[in-house]
Amino acid sequence: MSTPLIAILAGDGIGPEVTAEARRVLDALGLDLTFEEALVGGAAYRASGHPLPAATLDLARRADAILFGAVGDPACDTLERALRPEQAILGLRKELRTFANLRPARIFEGLEDASTLKPEVARAIDLVIVRELNGDVYFGEKGRRTNAAGLREGHDLMRYDEDEVRRIARVGFETAAKRRGKLCSVDKANVLETSQLWRDVVIEVAADYPTVELTHMYVDNAAMQLVRNPGAFDTIVTGNLFGDILSDQASMCVGSIGMLPSASMDAGGKGLYEPIHGSAPDIAGQGKANPCAAILSAAMMLRHSLGQAAAADRVEAAVAAALRAGVRTPDLGGDASTRAMGDAVLAAL
Amino acid sequence: MSTPLIAILAGDGIGPEVTAEARRVLDALGLDLTFEEALVGGAAYRASGHPLPAATLDLARRADAILFGAVGDPACDTLERALRPEQAILGLRKELRTFANLRPARIFEGLEDASTLKPEVARAIDLVIVRELNGDVYFGEKGRRTNAAGLREGHDLMRYDEDEVRRIARVGFETAAKRRGKLCSVDKANVLETSQLWRDVVIEVAADYPTVELTHMYVDNAAMQLVRNPGAFDTIVTGNLFGDILSDQASMCVGSIGMLPSASMDAGGKGLYEPIHGSAPDIAGQGKANPCAAILSAAMMLRHSLGQAAAADRVEAAVAAALRAGVRTPDLGGDASTRAMGDAVLAAL
Ligand SMILES: CC(C)[C@H](C(=O)O)[C@@H](O)C(=O)O
Ligand SMILES: CC(C)[C@H](C(=O)O)[C@@H](O)C(=O)O
Repeated sequence: MSTPLIAILAGDGIGPEVTAEARRVLDALGLDLTFEEALVGGAAYRASGHPLPAATLDLARRADAILFGAVGDPACDTLERALRPEQAILGLRKELRTFANLRPARIFEGLEDASTLKPEVARAIDLVIVRELNGDVYFGEKGRRTNAAGLREGHDLMRYDEDEVRRIARVGFETAAKRRGKLCSVDKANVLETSQLWRDVVIEVAADYPTVELTHMYVDNAAMQLVRNPGAFDTIVTGNLFGDILSDQASMCVGSIGMLPSASMDAGGKGLYEPIHGSAPDIAGQGKANPCAAILSAAMMLRHSLGQAAAADRVEAAVAAALRAGVRTPDLGGDASTRAMGDAVLAAL
Repeated sequence: MSTPLIAILAGDGIGPEVTAEARRVLDALGLDLTFEEALVGGAAYRASGHPLPAATLDLARRADAILFGAVGDPACDTLERALRPEQAILGLRKELRTFANLRPARIFEGLEDASTLKPEVARAIDLVIVRELNGDVYFGEKGRRTNAAGLREGHDLMRYDEDEVRRIARVGFETAAKRRGKLCSVDKANVLETSQLWRDVVIEVAADYPTVELTHMYVDNAAMQLVRNPGAFDTIVTGNLFGDILSDQASMCVGSIGMLPSASMDAGGKGLYEPIHGSAPDIAGQGKANPCAAILSAAMMLRHSLGQAAAADRVEAAVAAALRAGVRTPDLGGDASTRAMGDAVLAAL
């Protein structure tokens, strides 16, 4: 592989702050990597009138992997939908066909006190949510209109076809097979036709993975079980909307959304890596954001797109060591700054 | 009011067991009430070929209030959708136009150890979820087909019009006004057009409730905040699907889904009252189910449909007293049977 090109799309709010720390960690590893930056989200809108400018999309296409910060900007809330910052991440996921979103959640040693769950419950958490990212009600036909009765109406079509379900189901089974061998497929098949197709296809795919134990759970029950007994989950596979909700919920079970990375993979190994937290405008620019999710996203990038598993292990171990040393950003109940947290990880590398 | 007629639709699984205890409590109050029973769900399907037979629907229409158990039966999983047990509750909600689902969640004294949340977090919970029940992706056009590419496909239309949003928003504001005056509207307006309409209409309705403080939250963030700081919520108003997920999640935060009642109200004060738990086929017939949610649902019925607020208070106080006395079903970590729990509530009346 020639020198890999990493696109840095830091975005809005705390995105640039946390991405800068991830970049420092990558630099310190002494690997042969090149970086190129581009604007995205509200920052791109202000500079060029579009949240996902052609140059940014072009860079993302050329890159071997993308390190993404966060998008979202209250000042853009009144813009028409197509121009909002969030459209940039939705557009990237769709254009790059990164259909498989991996969201691991486990609690780092010593963070039990940051979780609102009882320590013995929090400590047992070690799960990954495999979320479909290119379909569902996110990308179905949508709009607003005045209906025949003269009323304003909004609609969004939830939709999946068997190919879309099959490919994410495979990622779910592959992921479970490399872990504890338990896959829980989450749907709402008692109400949704989409979910019934989902369930049928997942069951068909299961035939190819005889060693993986498959269960099915309704999404309302899953939201409940993630509080009641999160340690019972190994791998969860689910659609775009349910995955959005459940992964944010799981993030808090492990203490803070500031700890959780994610990978969004296409069929070939290229990926977009981003913390699952948002742009957090309320704390932007104050040096309070937790950079761990961004740093751990960089580690996932090393592992999944760059073939650098050993370097990924090193980064993850350094984050664990920094936390063990007691360094904590405010979301974890400490008062370390973003930079200080980054320094602690660098020191532990 | 002439003697009120209560329809008892106990349903499947643990439904009959827990409803029987609620009925005993109602009988013990010595009120002037008449009861009529009918089959619903899988039980009705087996007896008559339909989960919501005409006679059952007719009784529900004639009744002043409905005490509902639970529906759901694994043996019916392979039936076509229209014949499944769940269709009975969906059909009742639609036919009776019970559009406003109230799901209070607060932790009873002494149940902090049953919650997986740290006691100080659990103790602060006192919220109510106002869930829309007649619209959303539950009732939009849905189906499965083979598409132009020859692939199996499933779809469900998410849809709301302004009237549907307005009437549930009003219930949300009214509810908040009677409580701590804080209403949080939950949507996914950064992705869904339906949610943007929802948000616009909620903001319009807010003009009529100047004393209520309105905030908006994305559903993924709400799922997170319900774990992080559930005590910060007063009243949550949201759509059918998001309400389904968030209320089950909230139920576990207060210790057990076996504790939570719900009311589904029409525009005139008639209501269907049901525990938010399901039919729990795994423990059905074993006398292990917690009847508190059913008993508390009966209390909500007394208050909201029968004008018997004092009797409702008595029932709720009796449940609290029984729990304080240490009587606990297995879901709460004890070994009391369904009947023993009912006895304890009766004794405390
Ligand atoms: C920003 C938003 C569109 C996005 C989503 O809903 O997918 C975010 O919540 C996420 O989970 O990455
Ligand atoms: C049984 C099912 C259709 C129902 C729903 O999704 O509304 C249940 O989960 C509930 O919350 O009452």
